[in-house]
Amino acid sequence: MAEVIDIADPGDPRVADFRDLNNADRRPDLPGGKGLVVAEGVVVVQRMLTSRFAPSALLGVGRRYEQLADDLAGVEVPYYRATAEVMAEIVGFHLNRGVLAAANRPPELTVAEVLDGARTVAVLEGVNDHENIGSVFRNAAGLGADGVLFGDRCSDPLYRRSVRVSMGHVLRVPFATMPELPGSLDILRDSGFQIIALTPDPAADNLAKAMTGEKVALLLGAEGPGLTEDTMRASDIRARIPMTPGTDSLNVATAAAMAFYERVRTQ
Amino acid sequence: MAEVIDIADPGDPRVADFRDLNNADRRPDLPGGKGLVVAEGVVVVQRMLTSRFAPSALLGVGRRYEQLADDLAGVEVPYYRATAEVMAEIVGFHLNRGVLAAANRPPELTVAEVLDGARTVAVLEGVNDHENIGSVFRNAAGLGADGVLFGDRCSDPLYRRSVRVSMGHVLRVPFATMPELPGSLDILRDSGFQIIALTPDPAADNLAKAMTGEKVALLLGAEGPGLTEDTMRASDIRARIPMTPGTDSLNVATAAAMAFYERVRTQ
Repeated sequence: MAEVIDIADPGDPRVADFRDLNNADRRPDLPGGKGLVVAEGVVVVQRMLTSRFAPSALLGVGRRYEQLADDLAGVEVPYYRATAEVMAEIVGFHLNRGVLAAANRPPELTVAEVLDGARTVAVLEGVNDHENIGSVFRNAAGLGADGVLFGDRCSDPLYRRSVRVSMGHVLRVPFATMPELPGSLDILRDSGFQIIALTPDPAADNLAKAMTGEKVALLLGAEGPGLTEDTMRASDIRARIPMTPGTDSLNVATAAAMAFYERVRTQ
Repeated sequence: MAEVIDIADPGDPRVADFRDLNNADRRPDLPGGKGLVVAEGVVVVQRMLTSRFAPSALLGVGRRYEQLADDLAGVEVPYYRATAEVMAEIVGFHLNRGVLAAANRPPELTVAEVLDGARTVAVLEGVNDHENIGSVFRNAAGLGADGVLFGDRCSDPLYRRSVRVSMGHVLRVPFATMPELPGSLDILRDSGFQIIALTPDPAADNLAKAMTGEKVALLLGAEGPGLTEDTMRASDIRARIPMTPGTDSLNVATAAAMAFYERVRTQ
């Protein structure tokens, strides 16, 4: 059972991991960053509790403790209980969601671990927007995609905003970092994945027709620049989502959702 | 040709329509609101210039004028030219995009005008998030949906944030306000539309199989509450996107994108 510890002084050193969240640990993935993963709100905290990201402490108001009591039954970590006002002073802003959990990062999964048993994976290149990354995970979870692989120049998926936008699914959908693209695509090919590069290019094949593999890896680049030409060339096929001419490319997470949907649409 | 007028004094009354944008005219759609529609950035301003929303003035830096010169060739409105610093003082924040255009609202389209020639329309109920509404329009434009109809309790689609998130497509994809739902769905039925209520309910029909009409209207509710039971009951069929059990419903704009995609996927 989580032990409830009341916190009345915002300066209490026991809640240091939750202090000044908007400014602290802005690049938790870089050397010097504490590397903490922060879950916000009851639903995301529940997802963290059933993930491989074991929280080391929670900070929340009393009412949220009651809502989480069942989830915390077997969990031996402190629940720092504070008023909404004290919480706001600790974290640096008013937090509507009323509860936070902080976890250290476990070792990253390997690409092989992510591919094990997977049927549909996304491979991101140059996607450096935390919200888009969070949305990719939310859509992957909702539409049954099995994993996300990160190529070059992507943002940290465990940044607080990604965790929140993903609805906590970044803690549950497996992900790993690829060695340098496009060479590392061979790992996918050797595992039997059809490698599909998504592009707005009207000359590319129609996605619904191009996606023929039993296992597929969907390469997605950032809005605007898209995939690098090298990566595009290393794919098995270039595929497009049918788009109205003269409109922009879709948001990368929306494009991913469309491809994930294509895999499950008749289920 | 747009006339270039240099503005050196942020207090100049000629740029009043661009003043303090974060706070001014927060509910432009309500009585007392000026009802201005504001486009931000070169691409969105270009879309406004080719829409039925004719700008009454532009405010921007010199470089953006040069980029827009061709688009402004036949346009008899003032281009208020200012430095980035003076612009920031006028609008109240630093504007990366460097150019704004303001238009008055033309009369709203009627439902009949939106349905004329349309094959795929979305009908929103209770969607009160400006970003989600903007994303619905971006996805509609990209995936060839023909119009958006607003049922009860939706936000103003012409709010600045919606215009921006839509990439300006809210100015081009036709939309109208429905009389009260669900009674007004008869307008759609009488026009030959199959009325499909999207729901995460696992007991609903599979969307890909349910969508059989030559013309379809897709009813979408807000994340969380979804469609009202009355509206659901007035549909022809309830349809679900295949979702992984235990995940959240998709974002409403993503769900709309999936349905729009289903209409064009083999094109």
